[in-house]
Amino acid sequence: MFESAELGHRIEKDVWEREVPALREALLDAQYDLVAAKKFPVVLLIAGVDGAGKSAVVATLNEWMDPRHIQTHGFDDPSEEELERPYMWRYWRALPPKGKVGIMDGSWYSWPILQRANGKIGNDRLDHDMELVRRFEQMLIDEGALVLKFWMHLSKDAQKRRLKKLEGDPKTRWRVTDRDWRHFKLYDTFREVSERALRHTSTGQAPWIVVEATDARYQKLTVGKILLEQLRARLDNPAPRAISVQAPPSITSIDGVNLLQRMDLTKKLDKAQYEKELEAFQGELALLTRHKNFRKHNVVCVFEGVDAAGKGGGIRRITQAIDARMCRIVPIAAPTEEERAQPYLWRFWRHLPVRGKVEIFDRSWYGRVLVERVEGFCSEADWMRAYGEINDFEAQMAQSGTILLKFWLAISKEEQLRRFEERQTTRFKRFKITDEDWRNREKWDTYETAICDMLERTSTEIAPWTLVESEDKFHGRIKILKTLCRRLEDAL
Amino acid sequence: MFESAELGHRIEKDVWEREVPALREALLDAQYDLVAAKKFPVVLLIAGVDGAGKSAVVATLNEWMDPRHIQTHGFDDPSEEELERPYMWRYWRALPPKGKVGIMDGSWYSWPILQRANGKIGNDRLDHDMELVRRFEQMLIDEGALVLKFWMHLSKDAQKRRLKKLEGDPKTRWRVTDRDWRHFKLYDTFREVSERALRHTSTGQAPWIVVEATDARYQKLTVGKILLEQLRARLDNPAPRAISVQAPPSITSIDGVNLLQRMDLTKKLDKAQYEKELEAFQGELALLTRHKNFRKHNVVCVFEGVDAAGKGGGIRRITQAIDARMCRIVPIAAPTEEERAQPYLWRFWRHLPVRGKVEIFDRSWYGRVLVERVEGFCSEADWMRAYGEINDFEAQMAQSGTILLKFWLAISKEEQLRRFEERQTTRFKRFKITDEDWRNREKWDTYETAICDMLERTSTEIAPWTLVESEDKFHGRIKILKTLCRRLEDAL
Repeated sequence: MFESAELGHRIEKDVWEREVPALREALLDAQYDLVAAKKFPVVLLIAGVDGAGKSAVVATLNEWMDPRHIQTHGFDDPSEEELERPYMWRYWRALPPKGKVGIMDGSWYSWPILQRANGKIGNDRLDHDMELVRRFEQMLIDEGALVLKFWMHLSKDAQKRRLKKLEGDPKTRWRVTDRDWRHFKLYDTFREVSERALRHTSTGQAPWIVVEATDARYQKLTVGKILLEQLRARLDNPAPRAISVQAPPSITSIDGVNLLQRMDLTKKLDKAQYEKELEAFQGELALLTRHKNFRKHNVVCVFEGVDAAGKGGGIRRITQAIDARMCRIVPIAAPTEEERAQPYLWRFWRHLPVRGKVEIFDRSWYGRVLVERVEGFCSEADWMRAYGEINDFEAQMAQSGTILLKFWLAISKEEQLRRFEERQTTRFKRFKITDEDWRNREKWDTYETAICDMLERTSTEIAPWTLVESEDKFHGRIKILKTLCRRLEDAL
Repeated sequence: MFESAELGHRIEKDVWEREVPALREALLDAQYDLVAAKKFPVVLLIAGVDGAGKSAVVATLNEWMDPRHIQTHGFDDPSEEELERPYMWRYWRALPPKGKVGIMDGSWYSWPILQRANGKIGNDRLDHDMELVRRFEQMLIDEGALVLKFWMHLSKDAQKRRLKKLEGDPKTRWRVTDRDWRHFKLYDTFREVSERALRHTSTGQAPWIVVEATDARYQKLTVGKILLEQLRARLDNPAPRAISVQAPPSITSIDGVNLLQRMDLTKKLDKAQYEKELEAFQGELALLTRHKNFRKHNVVCVFEGVDAAGKGGGIRRITQAIDARMCRIVPIAAPTEEERAQPYLWRFWRHLPVRGKVEIFDRSWYGRVLVERVEGFCSEADWMRAYGEINDFEAQMAQSGTILLKFWLAISKEEQLRRFEERQTTRFKRFKITDEDWRNREKWDTYETAICDMLERTSTEIAPWTLVESEDKFHGRIKILKTLCRRLEDAL
């Protein structure tokens, strides 16, 4: 894949001076159109070998365009804080919103390629990591991003010359480190590993663009021109060529029996028993979260359920038992403007806790396949792919040591009516009931289908759903606490 | 993912008797529309746990529809012949053509899941295999297939009951083997591994449909109804919902320099030297193909190049040196009707040789990104995704022990003209030149772009291209022989 980038491509100075002004003007125009339209983000990867002038390209792009609308991110070894999150966390944080260009100097490719080149991981693991990346980029594209991946390449000789030249000049000497020379010794291995990584991730929709880095003018002009072409094509043609997709099966259960209906909502606990068990489990939970191994993990609890199912009450019974400094509740309402400018999972990634913490999501990323599906806020293709994207998201959490619990709180339609009416008549509960709640109630059956699909498609071996019969609040709360304690006990 | 399939779903006999006749009629109608339209194939996977009545479902579908237009394939342990090919080979062979329904009883999932459940492979490897499968299914969908994946599920109790019942009845006893009971002991492991496999491969476009298998009527009616719904939707709406894709960068080299131009076509060999080297390399090749380790491999040579570049001559110099029984030339012309009814790689998969053989493709799967691209026989999205699909294809060959060589034979435009004219004036060479050759020649520059893209995107660490300067035939032929000998020597 690198042969075309070892030909000694170059651009003479006069060509450069003739072409750059027009290119800059056109790039600026395109950038302002991008900013004005705010329809999609541009994710620009500048990856490649050491000494290939990646930073210089990034600097030039910032010079050519309006840097106020460019977000540049450099990625070195992950920080302590970053190591406590899933691998992709810091890249999610760096994603540009719609209307902006995000330049990634170094990227999600560097770490796995380096690990493989150093022999720390094998090919199976590299392929697995590249697969994650492939799905991540596909998600970005499906969410509307323009993804451009540039690989800066130097032949072995060219790299050696480049490093020597940088070292020879007192002004640039600092840019060459021992690490660069160590990497150079691995050139052949690095090349082979990179080629493997590129092979797995060069797709029809996000192809790699390999650029020879021997001549800086050639390199920068190539990146600039391709960026312009792609940006212009996308701006001028907002509905680009299409791939057709098949509709998902609408038949879920031909005998009308489903998971929700089969829940035994008559399960009950009397008050005395409830208070005894509440005390016991809250005590146990307090101890578990103080366990010395707890600092190696974190806990993410997801609460979903129909309106008035008792999510708030369930959450409070957990927080009561945990040191307030280690616990946080994230209530999920409609996304903010900032959040709407990002892929839908972005606003959940940003909240992922460091180790030793408990994070409770009061509603969650499952909104995508519940309210967004039912209300038609996203297309069928969007929510169909969301199941897989959510499973990938949760797999990454699990892999990084997160203990993930997902509670579905269920009540009957009659019980919901009773609670709605109680909320309307009880003065201090009136804030809890809105017109929207009544509207959602009318779509009970449509929601039921969506809920069953969700439970079926996202209850996995790494993150199973716990169905909580909440008709009796006492029973529901104890089941939540008990499930949480058992999972913590198993994990610690 | 299996919770919804452990609820004891069932369909009463009267419902069954009422619904089946109408379903059969509708299925038959849909099937005949499918046969008449010949627009797409249906790939129907019946997978799942042992004893879940997979064969009975397959039998019922064959009974309900016209079995002449259904191709049913059962897959047990791979045969000797199959083991000598890449893992996916036997599944490629079993793909139904457009207009037909292909039912896969057992499938590409069985082997990796079983291997993982038995502890023979780890999770990384399982994930890697599932990724291959995911890409394969995506390719089928992109090529227009309707892919339906049914997973037949039994709870642990239900499976035990089922096996016992089959064993208890003299008529069905033979269907339960020791292997079934051994698998049953692994139920929990098998369930977890299956869930992992399903999680990785349940995509928005090819979602798994999990069906409870406790009640045969429920199971069959569910499969039948979903098949009908999906078939009808696709037949009635030939241009289903679409996902937009971005255009590939059209800029490849801003300084006009490319791989082809940089080839040194002045390389020459005089006749005496040629004859000496020809004898030496052909001798070496003859010995290498008789090497005892050669039986562990096979060789696939791909010959591509502009018209009159000397492919035939190069190929003959190889075949002269090899026992005719172990060597086969596959000339690739326009696809046959049978081949056009399949994904474009199908006609190459079918030719993959067993071990100990040399297979020479005179033109190849690269037609997709050359002639099909240039002539507009496929869409931009099609040839853009083809690079990755081809790389995956070649990776599978390499993994199964194939030594793959890809030769690009280059001559100058002037030399081509000279050879064309020679062919027209030399009586015994006239069959070699057609109007099409002249038409292709007019598109020299367009082809050059396509060729450079191809070389860049498909020259990989597992299957690099060899560029052969063929202006001088002697030089070209010797380079081919020498490259082949060196690769064989390295591999044996």
